[in-house]
Amino acid sequence: MASPGSGFWSFGSEDGSGDPENPGTARAWCQVAQKFTGGIGNKLCALLYGDAEKTGGSSGSESPGVAPRKAACSCDQKPCSCPGAEVNYALLHSTDLLPAGDGERATLAFLQDVMEILLQYVVKSFDRSTKVIDFHYPNELLQEYNWELADQPQNLEEILMHCQTTLKYAIKTGHPRYFNQLSTGLDMVGLAADWLTSTANTNMFTYEIAPVFVLLEYVTLKKMREIIGWPGGSGDGIFSPGGAISNMYAMLIARFKMFPEVKEKGMAAIPRLIAFTSEHSHFSLKKGAAALGIGTDSVILIKCDERGRMIPSDLERRIMEAKQKGYVPFLVSATAGTTVYGAFDPLLAVADLCKKYKIWMHVDAAWGGGLLMSQKHKWKLNGVERANSVTWNPHKMMGVPLQCSALLVREEGLMQSCNQMHASYLFQQDKHYDLSYDTGDKALQCGRHVDVFKLWLMWRAKGTIGFEAHIDKCLELAEYLYNIIKNREGYEMVFDGKPQHTNVCFWYVPPSLRNLEDNEERMSRLSKVAPVIKARMMEFGTTMVSYQPLGDKVNFFRMVISNPAATHQDIDFLIEEIERLGQDL
Amino acid sequence: MASPGSGFWSFGSEDGSGDPENPGTARAWCQVAQKFTGGIGNKLCALLYGDAEKTGGSSGSESPGVAPRKAACSCDQKPCSCPGAEVNYALLHSTDLLPAGDGERATLAFLQDVMEILLQYVVKSFDRSTKVIDFHYPNELLQEYNWELADQPQNLEEILMHCQTTLKYAIKTGHPRYFNQLSTGLDMVGLAADWLTSTANTNMFTYEIAPVFVLLEYVTLKKMREIIGWPGGSGDGIFSPGGAISNMYAMLIARFKMFPEVKEKGMAAIPRLIAFTSEHSHFSLKKGAAALGIGTDSVILIKCDERGRMIPSDLERRIMEAKQKGYVPFLVSATAGTTVYGAFDPLLAVADLCKKYKIWMHVDAAWGGGLLMSQKHKWKLNGVERANSVTWNPHKMMGVPLQCSALLVREEGLMQSCNQMHASYLFQQDKHYDLSYDTGDKALQCGRHVDVFKLWLMWRAKGTIGFEAHIDKCLELAEYLYNIIKNREGYEMVFDGKPQHTNVCFWYVPPSLRNLEDNEERMSRLSKVAPVIKARMMEFGTTMVSYQPLGDKVNFFRMVISNPAATHQDIDFLIEEIERLGQDL
Repeated sequence: MASPGSGFWSFGSEDGSGDPENPGTARAWCQVAQKFTGGIGNKLCALLYGDAEKTGGSSGSESPGVAPRKAACSCDQKPCSCPGAEVNYALLHSTDLLPAGDGERATLAFLQDVMEILLQYVVKSFDRSTKVIDFHYPNELLQEYNWELADQPQNLEEILMHCQTTLKYAIKTGHPRYFNQLSTGLDMVGLAADWLTSTANTNMFTYEIAPVFVLLEYVTLKKMREIIGWPGGSGDGIFSPGGAISNMYAMLIARFKMFPEVKEKGMAAIPRLIAFTSEHSHFSLKKGAAALGIGTDSVILIKCDERGRMIPSDLERRIMEAKQKGYVPFLVSATAGTTVYGAFDPLLAVADLCKKYKIWMHVDAAWGGGLLMSQKHKWKLNGVERANSVTWNPHKMMGVPLQCSALLVREEGLMQSCNQMHASYLFQQDKHYDLSYDTGDKALQCGRHVDVFKLWLMWRAKGTIGFEAHIDKCLELAEYLYNIIKNREGYEMVFDGKPQHTNVCFWYVPPSLRNLEDNEERMSRLSKVAPVIKARMMEFGTTMVSYQPLGDKVNFFRMVISNPAATHQDIDFLIEEIERLGQDL
Repeated sequence: MASPGSGFWSFGSEDGSGDPENPGTARAWCQVAQKFTGGIGNKLCALLYGDAEKTGGSSGSESPGVAPRKAACSCDQKPCSCPGAEVNYALLHSTDLLPAGDGERATLAFLQDVMEILLQYVVKSFDRSTKVIDFHYPNELLQEYNWELADQPQNLEEILMHCQTTLKYAIKTGHPRYFNQLSTGLDMVGLAADWLTSTANTNMFTYEIAPVFVLLEYVTLKKMREIIGWPGGSGDGIFSPGGAISNMYAMLIARFKMFPEVKEKGMAAIPRLIAFTSEHSHFSLKKGAAALGIGTDSVILIKCDERGRMIPSDLERRIMEAKQKGYVPFLVSATAGTTVYGAFDPLLAVADLCKKYKIWMHVDAAWGGGLLMSQKHKWKLNGVERANSVTWNPHKMMGVPLQCSALLVREEGLMQSCNQMHASYLFQQDKHYDLSYDTGDKALQCGRHVDVFKLWLMWRAKGTIGFEAHIDKCLELAEYLYNIIKNREGYEMVFDGKPQHTNVCFWYVPPSLRNLEDNEERMSRLSKVAPVIKARMMEFGTTMVSYQPLGDKVNFFRMVISNPAATHQDIDFLIEEIERLGQDL
């Protein structure tokens, strides 16, 4: 569990730089530095002042093991001209940073030290000898550290300490053995792009205040529509705050397309609408229906085959049933990559039915959309080009930092008509540039975070072929796992056959359960295995993988691989770890 | 306009460090560095290699003026042990960075160089001698640079160049003369916190994967509720992707509170609902009503007084009118700080009416909520403690980086009941820790970006008194502006009296219009003044302030001050600039 006083997060000792045993070395450097011209001396001195002042051990009762660097220059010349000479964080507050008149030096030192903390974390994240998680129960975490907010400011030394502490207890989501979610991994270019986005600190609603980001959204969404297969990449779209909201957009637009009067008159003025999605689909379809005033009862869950794929004949039956009751089927949401099984609904068959019954076809490819980048796997989404709208989350299978979710719409202009409110104080119509780039009024949000830049920059850095290689590798790893466990003693697959996506669903059956009859008692005992193994994984901090029940199936592991850092050895490790932690159950 | 080839963004020459004229200096240092022990020499050499290789001038036809550093060591010892020795970005791709097995050195160099670009931008942002914006029309920007996405990867030199180019064309939203939006400024601690958030790269839905952030959200929302005035800070809340979504949440929860069956049955099963908000309120209320299936016709806009404050008698009249028609008034959204006038609706009077007619009282304090931090100004929100829900955007008046919007709800548990879908694959009920911290199921979103950390860390750094000082200063600056222009020749105030918030609304009347009769022609000509001045501001890049028409009032300037960098001199500058750019109109 916790290891107070370990000094894990103390500065300067772990990366091999600095000479903690001999601060005189740094001092000597700093003296020499002053003799050189051109500012180099100062820069060197600035680099050194911190390492020379490395503090060891605990720095107080509040957070054992967290020892922030005292950033005072240690050179012997007083007063010296080192940039760090007067940067003593214990004496500085945020008011001493920019825009304070003389705040530049302190600001640069502070931000560089934050960066050092972040870089240490990044390096540790990829180090298999570190824990994925240093787990603490909520009440422990609340007690171990004072998180409360107060009237009085804290100094920058304390602020740096908070940064370290926060990362100490964070989950290393980029760790090669973190498999817990559909979004894993930490891409370095994506991270850099997200830092830049934070620094630019602007909003997506107009070209006026986000010219480049607005253009990049335009370029990127068009490219994604081309990949979907819409002619010339035409259509519309938006980056939204997550797949659930993207799916809600689709539902909203589909409803507006069929009954535009709903915008002014509300649901009371139109017939009862019915949406269809599979029983394995994401809960956001029901959540969206509840929010939009459609109601969860009007979301019909279509049966799936044993692999979790929607059964088209059941879809048609339920569509006809709804029509017979006088209801209006308005949306089918097919899933390309279900959350648990990773199943791909048969999109071509769904498209045929949507065409036949004139229903909006949405594809929730939040998880599976990434496979469109792969020549080898994109056939699983055959038919997506016939959809009216598509949810595609690059923050899942494409490894883009959170959040990055796109909703793509085939018909241009519909989003704008559906959502615009003509707020003249935001979207002035007499501005001096082409207003078609002011896209804010087609969003549900007013202000909108810049989510595109990290995807765009990663795409530049990797190329489409880079995403393809990543995806092919993850699917190959999933198949590797499947091949290991499908016939291994102590494992049962939740469904037969090679996984369609990287989802591998299985039970680990401990020796004590292996010879039991397949009855209720066994199921009951089996259902408790995954939670205990998962709890132990988190307490040891060695790896993380998800589990859940589904329908009549008791708790099973759902392994997913989207992490670029994962290797065959990490898959082997996972298996060994499950067995190590579960064999006594 | 554009200044190609200016070399503005080339490295190393502007901050006084390095010696671009004398690369030999750096080489000499690098040689000396090798003789020292303890890793310091390597670190120094790593610091220097870039400056020594500074490239001048243009680096290609794609982006004139952008000259990335070639990160090869220039020391004379070959092979040398400088960490940067083999880091030549032109030869490196993202696949050479972590998690690549030998990627650590290249990763650290790359991220540090990105950071250098960001730090340069930060420093420039606060420099009044730099432009707020280097404006280009959309078609120019599309032509000047190749933004397209391709199959093939680009090298890291190109990636660094894209970072520079993106920032070159960005709006400096932290610039002391950027007044264009309600969100301005760039807080250094907030920025650091946002970088950390990006690095931690996780999602808010469970304690399992975001332990610290989930606790900090709990602590911070509780503190905000205490400040609102709810006993013991009790209640509920969430950080949502912007004020529009927060307002939509309020509407959603208010509807559910009155008619919980709407979740399953939809709007068709319940009476026609009516919401009330002022004619000066934010358009998101109507947008929300459209989305939720309530319909914009069911949002009644209540008349305002000449200062933009809702008139309670008109509210009561319209409530009674709706009831007489058999409709159900379910929500009043009062505004604390309207977008254009900065007006505060009379919350106590609204609260009385909501109590009388049993209507959910929401306060949209997205813009005005910050004033709750000020002893001097919080009286303007008297009555907010009687609200059922409050929208409060720390990313506006409190200067937190985008996005950071909170929806606070007085009744605990309601959000959860309203939005939960019990997705067992995400919110397992048999986990080993206290599940009350798994807050994901009360959100409309599934994945949710971490928005809390920057607010929490800023609050630690500034204390409540720091926010108070910032807010008092901004309001004082607004009053300063008001006092300058209220009697100044060529200015007309849009409404009389001291501004309630920092919004100062005025027309600049050029000399040619000053002696005209107050008729339609004058109005028509006056309406064209602000757009032209604004266009000129953007082309010169000197400052940015918003304008808009409102009701029967033609285009006027809406000055708002939330920028911590702004001073009295910047206000003086704005006035001079408006006159300089507008006197010939």
